[in-house]
Amino acid sequence: MAQAKDRQFRPLPVPSVDVSGFWGDWQEAVCDHTAAILLDRCVEARMLEQIDISVPSPGLVIPVVGWLGTTQMFWDSDIAKSIETIAYSLYRKPNSELEARADAIIDMYEKLQEPDGYLGSFFIRIWPEKRWSNLRDFHELYCAGHMIEAAVAYFQATGKRKFLDVMCRYADLIERKFGRGPGQMRGYCGHEEIELALVRLARVTGEHKYMELAKYFVDERGQEPNYFIGEAIRGGWDPKGVQAHAFEYNQSHLPLRAQTKVVGHAVRAMYIYSGMADIATEYNDDSLTTALEVLWADLTGKQMYLTGGIGPAAANEGFTDYYDLPNESAYAETCASVGLVFWASRMLGRKPDRRYADIMEQALYNGAIAGLSRDGKTFFYENPLESAGKHHRWTWHRCPCCPPNIARLVAAIGSYMYGVADDEIAVHLYGQSTARVALAGGTKVTLRQETQYPWDGVIALGVDVDKPVRFALSLRIPAWAQGATLAVNGQAVDVAAVTSDGYARVERDWQPGDSVRLDLPLVPRALRAHPKVRQDAGRVAVMRGPLVYCLEGVDNAPGLNSILLGDWLGKSQTASIPNLNGAIAIDLPVLHEVAEGDDLYSTTTPDTVDGEARLVPYHLWDNRAPGEMLVWLRTQRG
Amino acid sequence: MAQAKDRQFRPLPVPSVDVSGFWGDWQEAVCDHTAAILLDRCVEARMLEQIDISVPSPGLVIPVVGWLGTTQMFWDSDIAKSIETIAYSLYRKPNSELEARADAIIDMYEKLQEPDGYLGSFFIRIWPEKRWSNLRDFHELYCAGHMIEAAVAYFQATGKRKFLDVMCRYADLIERKFGRGPGQMRGYCGHEEIELALVRLARVTGEHKYMELAKYFVDERGQEPNYFIGEAIRGGWDPKGVQAHAFEYNQSHLPLRAQTKVVGHAVRAMYIYSGMADIATEYNDDSLTTALEVLWADLTGKQMYLTGGIGPAAANEGFTDYYDLPNESAYAETCASVGLVFWASRMLGRKPDRRYADIMEQALYNGAIAGLSRDGKTFFYENPLESAGKHHRWTWHRCPCCPPNIARLVAAIGSYMYGVADDEIAVHLYGQSTARVALAGGTKVTLRQETQYPWDGVIALGVDVDKPVRFALSLRIPAWAQGATLAVNGQAVDVAAVTSDGYARVERDWQPGDSVRLDLPLVPRALRAHPKVRQDAGRVAVMRGPLVYCLEGVDNAPGLNSILLGDWLGKSQTASIPNLNGAIAIDLPVLHEVAEGDDLYSTTTPDTVDGEARLVPYHLWDNRAPGEMLVWLRTQRG
Repeated sequence: MAQAKDRQFRPLPVPSVDVSGFWGDWQEAVCDHTAAILLDRCVEARMLEQIDISVPSPGLVIPVVGWLGTTQMFWDSDIAKSIETIAYSLYRKPNSELEARADAIIDMYEKLQEPDGYLGSFFIRIWPEKRWSNLRDFHELYCAGHMIEAAVAYFQATGKRKFLDVMCRYADLIERKFGRGPGQMRGYCGHEEIELALVRLARVTGEHKYMELAKYFVDERGQEPNYFIGEAIRGGWDPKGVQAHAFEYNQSHLPLRAQTKVVGHAVRAMYIYSGMADIATEYNDDSLTTALEVLWADLTGKQMYLTGGIGPAAANEGFTDYYDLPNESAYAETCASVGLVFWASRMLGRKPDRRYADIMEQALYNGAIAGLSRDGKTFFYENPLESAGKHHRWTWHRCPCCPPNIARLVAAIGSYMYGVADDEIAVHLYGQSTARVALAGGTKVTLRQETQYPWDGVIALGVDVDKPVRFALSLRIPAWAQGATLAVNGQAVDVAAVTSDGYARVERDWQPGDSVRLDLPLVPRALRAHPKVRQDAGRVAVMRGPLVYCLEGVDNAPGLNSILLGDWLGKSQTASIPNLNGAIAIDLPVLHEVAEGDDLYSTTTPDTVDGEARLVPYHLWDNRAPGEMLVWLRTQRG
Repeated sequence: MAQAKDRQFRPLPVPSVDVSGFWGDWQEAVCDHTAAILLDRCVEARMLEQIDISVPSPGLVIPVVGWLGTTQMFWDSDIAKSIETIAYSLYRKPNSELEARADAIIDMYEKLQEPDGYLGSFFIRIWPEKRWSNLRDFHELYCAGHMIEAAVAYFQATGKRKFLDVMCRYADLIERKFGRGPGQMRGYCGHEEIELALVRLARVTGEHKYMELAKYFVDERGQEPNYFIGEAIRGGWDPKGVQAHAFEYNQSHLPLRAQTKVVGHAVRAMYIYSGMADIATEYNDDSLTTALEVLWADLTGKQMYLTGGIGPAAANEGFTDYYDLPNESAYAETCASVGLVFWASRMLGRKPDRRYADIMEQALYNGAIAGLSRDGKTFFYENPLESAGKHHRWTWHRCPCCPPNIARLVAAIGSYMYGVADDEIAVHLYGQSTARVALAGGTKVTLRQETQYPWDGVIALGVDVDKPVRFALSLRIPAWAQGATLAVNGQAVDVAAVTSDGYARVERDWQPGDSVRLDLPLVPRALRAHPKVRQDAGRVAVMRGPLVYCLEGVDNAPGLNSILLGDWLGKSQTASIPNLNGAIAIDLPVLHEVAEGDDLYSTTTPDTVDGEARLVPYHLWDNRAPGEMLVWLRTQRG
């Protein structure tokens, strides 16, 4: 067995996990609705005209704005994330029409690709003279990254190599173009993404040069002199950029290993930390892991919403000050929570540790999945924790990054559930599913999870092996799961004794037909924020398992801030919510504050009357009727 | 005596009131600093180059933006409000240098004026071809209004007629240009202001045609078909404008008499309601008064901050939804509270009524005067009711409307203190001052107020008459002044018996040497907002007299939201604040919440320890050291 610290856990390919139950329902929605909707909206937005050389170029469809670019520059990423979603959905549910549409787009890209491999549609058809001229703002490598991810996914799901070959040619060009050698550009992208994409490409192709290129982008970022200064001077524009603290905005203000504070654009931050974590895993690079641990503590200890939403401000789509977590105006972009899931999952590359997996689950079940409606047809971009009733799901967005991002995460959820090392399988997420795992030496293991999780906390695991085989099965015991119990083949296991870093590790010779039963008590609990979070002062939020709960207008009387929680713990009841796929609501006794008179301000203290309130999972809000929503509830004791 | 309902109360000219004490200190700051600073900043911004025909035109200094205009279009208004401020300051404190600078600017305007009287500098020197082409956005009549107000003020303060004559010629042009006659433009300004200015011009010149023109603008606004639709079609731009709800934005969506909800841009709303109230007074127009009463109840009952701040949103610089009063992100522009003072003072034109005067005082002492630093050198544009420590006073602003607006209000405060009808003097505001009043028939009365108000509630009024004269003296008894007492020549008066509409009315034959003593108890009180104001739920604010109090970082431990008010009423003490001109602080016992551990979220309830907190007047915050600020405080019972 390798040194514990040098274990390398990698995710399973999406097709290795069959998902049903809770996540199966979500995947059905993506297969049946979201996947096609994404393509439809790309077409409506005229994106395909930009990549189809058989039709005239659409020209500049979206005007150039203050930052000297246009969101049209990253149309390739929207198309790519849509194709990635389709890839996973085709694996789950074959759909010849959707596959034909994806194939047609891939054909367009093949025809569009230049002889040297270049494949950025905006800079082929609209602004060819500006290619590679503005890495900071123009998103070329970002688009390449998403196209690489899509190509990998499409290959894994369908076995078709064409897109993968196209993207290898583009990656080869990038590998020749960027680096520290003579004649190479010593730059990196203003919007990180290609780093993690190149790791995926290296893993699927076995080409180490892509890993090395990813490592170069990670190592080079933020080195002195900052690449973006010279670039701006050459381009004749303001080196300070349009964003205040421009270098912080894209995490290039310091070398990545020297960064200790999570700053700037939230999605960019999550993507580069994901890439760093991948490189840390692949190179067993403790210097990266150490930096990431500091950044992780900074984000999750001072800058994260309870929902796993991050980046409170619209102005920079990102971070502001420590403990600044406004609820009603929260930006908390869906993509940022999706990115936090990406990062957290990659922090599990070096060892199972619930510090990361608990947050991965929290972001996934709340801030991320909230971005998709239950039917897969509409989307949230911002994810506030309070609404006076005017925040509703969109059919699309001016910057359509979030819909395909949450869709591809849902469609690929199986690959986030497990981490596999040579002789260890870590179960990070629970959910009805079957996983086919290959350990070192080709030993095959099939893991079946039977569970109603997250509605119920009992998880029955079947471990199928052809013959007896020794490996460790590490099961996450979430920090919230007080009193969790574990049994192997009906024999109780002392959870505390076998648990380290929050994972119960059962190492044994597994026999055909072995079974494991894990029971995670799902007791509603009241969370308080640190007193420095002024916006939550005196308020509590209710969680059950990984789920954050909220009050919604449709279930309660108007004026959710007139509801006061009293002594409710132990007095709550759960109930299944009609028309929400068996989702569990929490009903509990409360006090309702009653207005006395119409005065806007008065010296009287309002009376209270006894009442009841219903809480529903945050991620399901705005799926029934429009109305108010509130996560942080008032209490009798302020 | 006139019918009670037909009494017409008009303000005193500024030079009729000598102010000292509290407001005298503020006026000194304006005279010594603000007045010159305003002109200096106008010069730095290159405003004078636009009106000085002896130098080249500066051209377009501030680029045209989305709404197709530039803030450079209203430079005349910034200059005019500065001159208005200087006019009042010259009356208080002669300053030959400042007077010479103002005279020079007036000379420039005289030379700039076109033969037909036109005098909009941007449309003379920058865009002459666009004159009168876009009343909705281009602010021409708005600028004319402010220039008229400045000319009236300069005439009243210095006796010099030149600017007044210049502006009468411009007003004559406008009077010929606008109206319902053949060849006239049947329009009105997108930014109201000229209405109230024309009333002032009519009052000082005695020219009824200016009053009629003001009435025309009031009567015509919002009539069908909306003027701005035809204008936009003629100009070839989007009739919907750049603002959503474009007609509501400038209060032209309905005829003014049919409007029942306060909407749109807050300053615009306040200015047109001010003009409406003036016309209601001058024409004894009950239809206008009735509409204004409805709008008043709408604003003050559902849309006003406790500070008299109004217009919570930056997006439209104005109103949003009922009871939507976010504290930290409050826009609550200084100009809007100044405008509320304007409107409230004019609602007193038909009778004394504390419904209006109490709010006038509340807006004046809190939302408005907060806009000026105690030394008269720096300014607030937005006036939030909570700050995490980053909101600070500016030396100037991209749109410098607020600094001269609060400065001219302070410098003219004497004219807001009294309302004078034929045989009645109403005292709306208390403060150390001497007012020279002329009643019907020329009877002269001098009123002296001796008081430390608002720090102390005792007001000694001396009524000086040459010979016995009968008139009514109406003294406002604020709604908060529980237990107010009144004595005339030492004889107690039954306040309740003589009070109607919140004014104690003492009608008698006043003798030389008569004196009145009013005692308004200043007891700190705790205000709660209506439960529908979600942002203030479970919180209280402390007021003493007209002053809203706040916690400031400089006086208290960090984390103002960790402070809980308990049972403090009756346990507070007042103290004079060092270095703030004798301002009164309130010290009171509180609980401090103590963090347990560093977890961002946990299931533990924080402990509390006993402590003390100091509250200071809201309008004085950010005058000592930068830091946090909080108006709405947490309570032990949420």
